[in-house]
Amino acid sequence: MTQPFRTTRRVEFGDTDMAGIAHFANFFRYMEAAETEFLRSLGLSVSWQDGPQRFGFPRVSVACDFQRPVRFEDVLDIAVTVEEVGRKSVRYRFDFSREGKEIAVGRITAVYCREVPNHHLESSEIPPAIRAKLTGA
Amino acid sequence: MTQPFRTTRRVEFGDTDMAGIAHFANFFRYMEAAETEFLRSLGLSVSWQDGPQRFGFPRVSVACDFQRPVRFEDVLDIAVTVEEVGRKSVRYRFDFSREGKEIAVGRITAVYCREVPNHHLESSEIPPAIRAKLTGA
Amino acid sequence: MTQPFRTTRRVEFGDTDMAGIAHFANFFRYMEAAETEFLRSLGLSVSWQDGPQRFGFPRVSVACDFQRPVRFEDVLDIAVTVEEVGRKSVRYRFDFSREGKEIAVGRITAVYCREVPNHHLESSEIPPAIRAKLTGA
Amino acid sequence: MTQPFRTTRRVEFGDTDMAGIAHFANFFRYMEAAETEFLRSLGLSVSWQDGPQRFGFPRVSVACDFQRPVRFEDVLDIAVTVEEVGRKSVRYRFDFSREGKEIAVGRITAVYCREVPNHHLESSEIPPAIRAKLTGA
Repeated sequence: MTQPFRTTRRVEFGDTDMAGIAHFANFFRYMEAAETEFLRSLGLSVSWQDGPQRFGFPRVSVACDFQRPVRFEDVLDIAVTVEEVGRKSVRYRFDFSREGKEIAVGRITAVYCREVPNHHLESSEIPPAIRAKLTGA
Repeated sequence: MTQPFRTTRRVEFGDTDMAGIAHFANFFRYMEAAETEFLRSLGLSVSWQDGPQRFGFPRVSVACDFQRPVRFEDVLDIAVTVEEVGRKSVRYRFDFSREGKEIAVGRITAVYCREVPNHHLESSEIPPAIRAKLTGA
Repeated sequence: MTQPFRTTRRVEFGDTDMAGIAHFANFFRYMEAAETEFLRSLGLSVSWQDGPQRFGFPRVSVACDFQRPVRFEDVLDIAVTVEEVGRKSVRYRFDFSREGKEIAVGRITAVYCREVPNHHLESSEIPPAIRAKLTGA
Repeated sequence: MTQPFRTTRRVEFGDTDMAGIAHFANFFRYMEAAETEFLRSLGLSVSWQDGPQRFGFPRVSVACDFQRPVRFEDVLDIAVTVEEVGRKSVRYRFDFSREGKEIAVGRITAVYCREVPNHHLESSEIPPAIRAKLTGA
């Protein structure tokens, strides 16, 4: 679809665990931050207010495969690709590398939702203007 | 004031850092969880809905002194003491120990607030019923 | 294979995000803690020292599908099942539910490794004694 | 002492809590990352290997006072000041602001340590070369 969106992330001390490597769960925070940055570059967000209504992209499915560990102060290159835009959902792929070597590949499927009273979320069709930005059309 | 409220917490793998010890920032999560548990034992919470109004105890000042590190699978004993109840705020003290040895001493000062539209918070006098529970009166 | 191992986890205030629900990345911490508890029940761990040698089960593949959100103070029931034990790896399935309703299903594939100098990890065949415990044989 | 070292940090979605603000415990991660960046600018670190020996600056005392909450996507300006360099320890002050308004003031006291076998830490006098860098002498 679109060209990958590229960003970087440096592993912080607090991201490591006693095995001396970045704790795997942090890769999901890295993905979400990269996704947010990508959406911001398009004038979008993962959660926003439009008048009285709140919208967002909560996740329904996420995954990550790890090839190599990374350590404190390592800088990760992250490429964000929109793999698929469905009627209500979008799937991102995140390619993590370091100095050209594959580190991990992650995926997030997020569903377009509006918030109804009491923090409840209701999925809804992705509006054409948002779809056009996500697909790079 | 009151007798300390006692609870325990086991250090998880994801709580450790590359130095092989529980990362210091996690002690604030441990404190907040112990505070929540203490409040729950009194029929209170750190954040709740009362009809159309949301209330809570956001933190204005926190601190922690560390005597000894703890490691994966260590079980921490946590004693929660209400050190002071002011007009709008409450200060907790948290004594962390392990097998009778001092690990850390933390403090949280939280302010009684009601949420006004758009997630804004407004401090307010602690109602007598809540004050009575906090002071053990 | 084995009967599921069952444990529970209460959603903490610090686990929530601005959407008012447990942030999705925390489910991986919940999984790892449940896995650790399961291993502990078998006399095993996710990371341990055996004489001069360190061993562990770093993750190579993880995933989670989310059916329903959970909120602050909700108690999650977690069932841990050993889905497959390979030559060097083990795959766990985690069924999260709340009051009988499905919340999420997660998976972790972990590889048996020994640590070589400088925090490097080398995968290795799962010893028969550990395999027997994991398969409930 | 020295001129403050300045950096910025954007609040991520996963940093927020159900009150819609950055969860207080994350300020300690922000501080540590700013401290690391400051040390890196001096050619130092919070944890490093020197031949067979590992060194680091574990924390013994930390605190934070919060004036105003911050929200998702807010950019924090962080000024790091070395407040005091003792024989074995260093105290940093972190001034958080946003668009010129005070958000929070934090402090970390870290002790110079070398790691002895089994992840144990032993405090030690700060070597003159490191002291000179920290004091900007």
